[in-house]
Amino acid sequence: MNQAVILLSGGLDSSTLLHYVRKTLGCRTLHALTFRYGQKHAREIECAQWQAHALAVAEHQVLDLTVLGNLSAGVSALTDACLPVPDMAALRSDQRDQPPTYVPNRNMILLALAAAYAESKGITDVFYGAQIQDRYGYWDCTPEFLDRMNAVLVLNRRGAVRIHAPFIRMSKQEIVRIGQDLGVDYGRTWTCYRGMAKACGACPSCVERLGAFRRLDVSDPLDYETI
Amino acid sequence: MNQAVILLSGGLDSSTLLHYVRKTLGCRTLHALTFRYGQKHAREIECAQWQAHALAVAEHQVLDLTVLGNLSAGVSALTDACLPVPDMAALRSDQRDQPPTYVPNRNMILLALAAAYAESKGITDVFYGAQIQDRYGYWDCTPEFLDRMNAVLVLNRRGAVRIHAPFIRMSKQEIVRIGQDLGVDYGRTWTCYRGMAKACGACPSCVERLGAFRRLDVSDPLDYETI
Repeated sequence: MNQAVILLSGGLDSSTLLHYVRKTLGCRTLHALTFRYGQKHAREIECAQWQAHALAVAEHQVLDLTVLGNLSAGVSALTDACLPVPDMAALRSDQRDQPPTYVPNRNMILLALAAAYAESKGITDVFYGAQIQDRYGYWDCTPEFLDRMNAVLVLNRRGAVRIHAPFIRMSKQEIVRIGQDLGVDYGRTWTCYRGMAKACGACPSCVERLGAFRRLDVSDPLDYETI
Repeated sequence: MNQAVILLSGGLDSSTLLHYVRKTLGCRTLHALTFRYGQKHAREIECAQWQAHALAVAEHQVLDLTVLGNLSAGVSALTDACLPVPDMAALRSDQRDQPPTYVPNRNMILLALAAAYAESKGITDVFYGAQIQDRYGYWDCTPEFLDRMNAVLVLNRRGAVRIHAPFIRMSKQEIVRIGQDLGVDYGRTWTCYRGMAKACGACPSCVERLGAFRRLDVSDPLDYETI
């Protein structure tokens, strides 16, 4: 594979994916896209910039998509300043099925934009970092979603762009193991839903990340508030 | 149908669609979305605002999506200032298959955003104005595209948003006939790819529109430069 487009949030999964596409799949020319869609903080975006620079991607675009935050106003705790991100321990059982940090239809939007960019550049492969633990609450991180998105894109008569999600059947623990082998600096990835000086250690995203490192018996190089 | 979201460009098809959803389908509460994605002129957007006001839509949002124009830089004559819009008569045969005004993956992007908005508002129906004459050059205006987009969206566990395109098997002539019955003011719709004081009458979009009115033996109320 000569060229690929990667959705790079700056989180653990997509940062590992960037290394995986370069080092494991041997892709020479990487194009990374990061979207500002109204997230409450920019910590993840700074990490995306650091990772893109570390891997000398050919082009890293940080793009304004605040329209997405506006369209889903009042719905997602990830983008709405009035909706707090709850601690994992405080989640009600229905919130574990559908987390309050869900952003409506986010992945179709981001992947559709990535496909437009790929098509414009004559690139046929787009990657995103869905993993198996996302499935519990995010319908747009499932193998069925991936297959059906590709079933739309294959209709493009100018030549289809294909979306790949190589981690879609892996746990975060397996992803961290891959990333360690590939030399990912996890101190330069941001997972916490909150944007404090240190990661909070208590939001659902931190709890999941810390669990992955713990199960591997590896220490997470990131600084946390509460551990 | 109590509520619907309509992609309203301000062109002939989507303006007729707005009237159709209100008057023929009897939808009481309309939400219209118009996107600025780097089009060279705002004439269509002014018409969208006029039509939305005329039908007293509950909410009309004109949204910034210049990111789409940026991502597809150098590709589309609709959004790239360096690429001229050719006259219909000057199109090469390969341009008739794939018009230079094609914007990569535009409809998946706009519909994905409309679906996010609908989901956020608890609305289940989204409409867009694809018609049969678009099929020759726009893979994202076909019944197959529509079906497969809905096959993605039906996976949403929060309740599926469904996309409708009631004109997808109709010609522009049939749409104008419907619009005349519904009282659409076609002097307040903009079809021309160019943004001059009057419509040019020569670009592929004008030629198609004028042909529809001519075949109906009806005069187009819009002022044209060249006829």
